[in-house]
Amino acid sequence: MDVITVGVDIGGTKIQAAAVRNGSVAGSHRVSTPQTGANDLVAAVGDAITKSLAETGADVEDLSAIGIGVPGAVDTAAGTVSNSPNLPGFQGADPIPLAKMVSAVAGDVAVKLDNDVRVAILGEWKRGAGRPYRNLLGVWVGTGVGGGLVLNGELYGGTGAAGEIGHTNIKPGGRVCSDGRKGHLEAYAGRGRIEAEARERVKDGQKTILFELMEKKGRTRLSSGIIATALERGDKLAEELIDDAVWALGVACASVQNLLALEAIIIGGGLGDRLGEPFVDRVARQMRPQLFVPEAPPVMLTPAFGDLSGAVGGAVLAES
Amino acid sequence: MDVITVGVDIGGTKIQAAAVRNGSVAGSHRVSTPQTGANDLVAAVGDAITKSLAETGADVEDLSAIGIGVPGAVDTAAGTVSNSPNLPGFQGADPIPLAKMVSAVAGDVAVKLDNDVRVAILGEWKRGAGRPYRNLLGVWVGTGVGGGLVLNGELYGGTGAAGEIGHTNIKPGGRVCSDGRKGHLEAYAGRGRIEAEARERVKDGQKTILFELMEKKGRTRLSSGIIATALERGDKLAEELIDDAVWALGVACASVQNLLALEAIIIGGGLGDRLGEPFVDRVARQMRPQLFVPEAPPVMLTPAFGDLSGAVGGAVLAES
Repeated sequence: MDVITVGVDIGGTKIQAAAVRNGSVAGSHRVSTPQTGANDLVAAVGDAITKSLAETGADVEDLSAIGIGVPGAVDTAAGTVSNSPNLPGFQGADPIPLAKMVSAVAGDVAVKLDNDVRVAILGEWKRGAGRPYRNLLGVWVGTGVGGGLVLNGELYGGTGAAGEIGHTNIKPGGRVCSDGRKGHLEAYAGRGRIEAEARERVKDGQKTILFELMEKKGRTRLSSGIIATALERGDKLAEELIDDAVWALGVACASVQNLLALEAIIIGGGLGDRLGEPFVDRVARQMRPQLFVPEAPPVMLTPAFGDLSGAVGGAVLAES
Repeated sequence: MDVITVGVDIGGTKIQAAAVRNGSVAGSHRVSTPQTGANDLVAAVGDAITKSLAETGADVEDLSAIGIGVPGAVDTAAGTVSNSPNLPGFQGADPIPLAKMVSAVAGDVAVKLDNDVRVAILGEWKRGAGRPYRNLLGVWVGTGVGGGLVLNGELYGGTGAAGEIGHTNIKPGGRVCSDGRKGHLEAYAGRGRIEAEARERVKDGQKTILFELMEKKGRTRLSSGIIATALERGDKLAEELIDDAVWALGVACASVQNLLALEAIIIGGGLGDRLGEPFVDRVARQMRPQLFVPEAPPVMLTPAFGDLSGAVGGAVLAES
């Protein structure tokens, strides 16, 4: 009999679902993230699940389980989410029973939750670019910078909050990070902090086409696409900020490699995906002279599933 | 029947053996490390093994296995050592078959090798301060700074050279490290680099009793004991250098904690042991405000076996 699972990647702007039949993606569906609270978000998740299943010719009665990657503090055992800064309805300290709520709108099927970045790494490790490896770091460069680890052939969770490579201190007293502390990787490589730094520099009189491009696109934020376009057009400020991001990722990845002697590092996330292989190659070149064993550098990879990694990982989580 | 193993910790200045009967240390012996090559070193290891066994009333015929921790590049499968900067006879790039050589002088008993710091962590994890934990970092602050990890309840090796926390980049462009690169933890916290920095500052005219104490003791190096004595006497330079070491350890431990969400961190090694709990407490206070989850800091520990950790770990390695 066919085994059908659905994986869902919940982000601050979009919800991506993938229906997986016997290990292969057979359908997928994306919806915008409602900005109106937990109930509307759960309804949208249910909708994405149903529509991704419909693409495969199946419905929720054929479904064996659902796996969800979600940003914030996830209690995997309880199936709850709290402290998720960009997810309306889940921003508070009170744990919201997301697993139970999704199950209720999806035929009472079993639902597993885990941290979004960790779930994306799980997808890439089991089905994507990370398949050959037992010791693997994923660095997800998006609005923030998150991480996930596979160590000794197991997804690594530590006491719960493992993977926060974005909060590696790479320059004491350096740029302010999203958590208010200084000099973290995320302060240099996260899209949100890159945007904040760009706004500061424009205030100080530096010229750039970044905000012009943003307005032309009718956006209020410097998306990864806008940053990439500015880079392609030789915008000096965009180049400086991405140079800093490459430098910061090189420093942090080198320190982690010296500690963990990994086989491979995957760089993904919104900004990572958009800048792609040339960006990852630059990080690799930045990192290499800093390695304690330079003759055994980790293989540097991009995600095989791009921005579907999270949804595929959710399906893997559902199968486990 | 009794199970008797011997663990040996080989260092640049001393060789420490411990005979363990049914899991408890029953005898130990320490000899100076011969500075005259591999054969003399192996003979000294054989001597330490025999004498530690004799203390228990046993001899090599009662011995089930030997485990050795050794600095340098260790091939655990082949039982060889190379590139060990402070071990005469093992400094070259050619792997020397230490396991086989020790077995030949110890009744052909099976001999296992691993990196000295990793073996010490193994001892503390299985028998010492680290017993309650499944996710554990050991930071060994000696002439250099080494590390070892227990993750998901297993000793972690990565592709072989895991644990080099001393080469975490904590201050880009900072002090020169033993490996020639700049700004590493070891450049601030390793005894060797602390000594080099002290010599520089004396050249620049700074006053200190460090080198006076060294001469009085008839030494040519600033041992951990000399540094500790200078601190106790309120020597300003010693205080500044140890303040820097505490700061550097706090930065590096915080970054690792943010990535790995560990349960505990053990700080040991020659300098760590000598400065003891007050030093570890200072590192804990330095680290804590830098944690991403400050309400779940790792337990900060000193080694239960002090400088016997390595030999006890060797015995555990032998049992495995």
